[in-house]
Amino acid sequence: MSKLAIGIDVGGTNSKFGFTTEDGTLVAQSRIKTRDFPDFKAYILELKKQIEALHPLDDVVGIGVGAPNGNFYNGKVEYPPNLPWKGVLDFTKDIECAFGKKTIVTNDGNAAALGEMAYGKAKNMRDFVVLTVGTGLGSGIVVNGELVYGKDGFAGELGHTLVNANGRNCDCGKKGCLETYVSATGIKRTVYKLLADYTEPSVLRSISFDQLSTRTITAAAAEGDKIAIEAFAYTGRILGMKLSDFVVHTGPEAIFLLGGLSKAGDHLFKPAQDNMEKYLMPRFKLRKIELQPSGLKDDDAQILGASSLVWKYIDGK
Amino acid sequence: MSKLAIGIDVGGTNSKFGFTTEDGTLVAQSRIKTRDFPDFKAYILELKKQIEALHPLDDVVGIGVGAPNGNFYNGKVEYPPNLPWKGVLDFTKDIECAFGKKTIVTNDGNAAALGEMAYGKAKNMRDFVVLTVGTGLGSGIVVNGELVYGKDGFAGELGHTLVNANGRNCDCGKKGCLETYVSATGIKRTVYKLLADYTEPSVLRSISFDQLSTRTITAAAAEGDKIAIEAFAYTGRILGMKLSDFVVHTGPEAIFLLGGLSKAGDHLFKPAQDNMEKYLMPRFKLRKIELQPSGLKDDDAQILGASSLVWKYIDGK
Repeated sequence: MSKLAIGIDVGGTNSKFGFTTEDGTLVAQSRIKTRDFPDFKAYILELKKQIEALHPLDDVVGIGVGAPNGNFYNGKVEYPPNLPWKGVLDFTKDIECAFGKKTIVTNDGNAAALGEMAYGKAKNMRDFVVLTVGTGLGSGIVVNGELVYGKDGFAGELGHTLVNANGRNCDCGKKGCLETYVSATGIKRTVYKLLADYTEPSVLRSISFDQLSTRTITAAAAEGDKIAIEAFAYTGRILGMKLSDFVVHTGPEAIFLLGGLSKAGDHLFKPAQDNMEKYLMPRFKLRKIELQPSGLKDDDAQILGASSLVWKYIDGK
Repeated sequence: MSKLAIGIDVGGTNSKFGFTTEDGTLVAQSRIKTRDFPDFKAYILELKKQIEALHPLDDVVGIGVGAPNGNFYNGKVEYPPNLPWKGVLDFTKDIECAFGKKTIVTNDGNAAALGEMAYGKAKNMRDFVVLTVGTGLGSGIVVNGELVYGKDGFAGELGHTLVNANGRNCDCGKKGCLETYVSATGIKRTVYKLLADYTEPSVLRSISFDQLSTRTITAAAAEGDKIAIEAFAYTGRILGMKLSDFVVHTGPEAIFLLGGLSKAGDHLFKPAQDNMEKYLMPRFKLRKIELQPSGLKDDDAQILGASSLVWKYIDGK
């Protein structure tokens, strides 16, 4: 049988995992609810149980993990703001012990960028940026064909660049981070602010904050709900403004967006693209730098990205 | 005799040039006033005349040029906002024709970063950022030991990241670029704003905008002039706030500052460092990321940086 990798995407809401081949075929996949396991050891045990039930491990050459605040250099997940566990979690050691397979950890944004480069739209690109918009906003930056890790292994945290020094409280401890505006949680906050500021009727007025989701807001926007449309426009304007900063940093060929928010289509992409161009240093406009949806399906992308760590760093390359 | 490189630093005010050895010794150096030559051909001719008069060219293996908007990929200087010439200037071709020596062009910030890596404080660093604060604000970003050029060859334009969408007009055509606050021109604008807003007596009230220089403001601050001190503090606060964004991008080991403004010492560095830390994502604070003055002397740094292009890309490496 052909060699397999296991990819695990640890998200604030779901942990998704699957078995993939080197050409990017997802052989099997499943998920567990991350928040159901406040105890980290119990979480690892459940992962093991579910993964072993999903597919035999005989042909698996390694395990790749993408997680918020995953540190590629030391294999640990350090002080993740959106996960149920506190402090420093030694994912690599605990997963290697549980499965007996070599394991590599990186942050979720980096994993998505590797996936985009291996199987998505960035196959022939040497410079690009991927933003993963889930509960939080992760990012992976590729420069000269290599991921940017930085001195300490956790570069590429574009979700924590500053939008407004007096802005919304962020789980990281700062105020006004991009993530507090551009993420599943960010757009919910924007919807609630708009519902407070305006008297416009909206289907969203009947939904509690806890029940509100990107999917509901996207559906409302598609039906012409003005609050939902304005929430996306506001999100897009802020995203676009910050994208203009990202572009003059590393000069990407394109920027890819992954996750629930990217399903909103023009409601989000148009204001984001327009505002990126509006605030971009003119000489960078000689070529159109496009904000695009990822070339991979959401669920697949994160698992493929995590498993591509195995093909890149473990399997004899 | 040992091999020599010529380094040329094209600045908005001065063009500095010199002959350097591979170990970073400046054998001879001089300068001309860039603005004295509104005609580009006349400028190249004067450069040739002055450089030939300075030292024999026999042992010169190549010429490196650092210039605002210098494009490493095509050797051209494209629409430079702070130089007296318009449009696209083929520096590489014109200098190669004039001198008969292989020539490499990059932007001034990139040249400074190469110089810092070859001869300055970044000798053993793989990830760092250099900011060159002259008439404008240039920058060079090094990631994984390599300069970041980006898809089109002009990445690393941190001077044109956004501070305030409704802020000061920038020569690049935008509003509120970092360069309009943090540069020799930026701090003059800040002094004039403070002189307008406050009634505080100041030695700077007797100096016209055209006559005002970073040197004058630095000297006034050293004498305790409140307007001058506040101008540096304001500049430092804005710089520090943006540095926190730069750090989460590429995770540098350190950030180096070069040029007139860096002579102000604590008046600038302290508010910049404090504000970088204030706005930095907490996990990046585990290690102190220091804003430091460049390890090279100002005039030398730019020439050494430009000439290091020769050792890196021309002389058999």
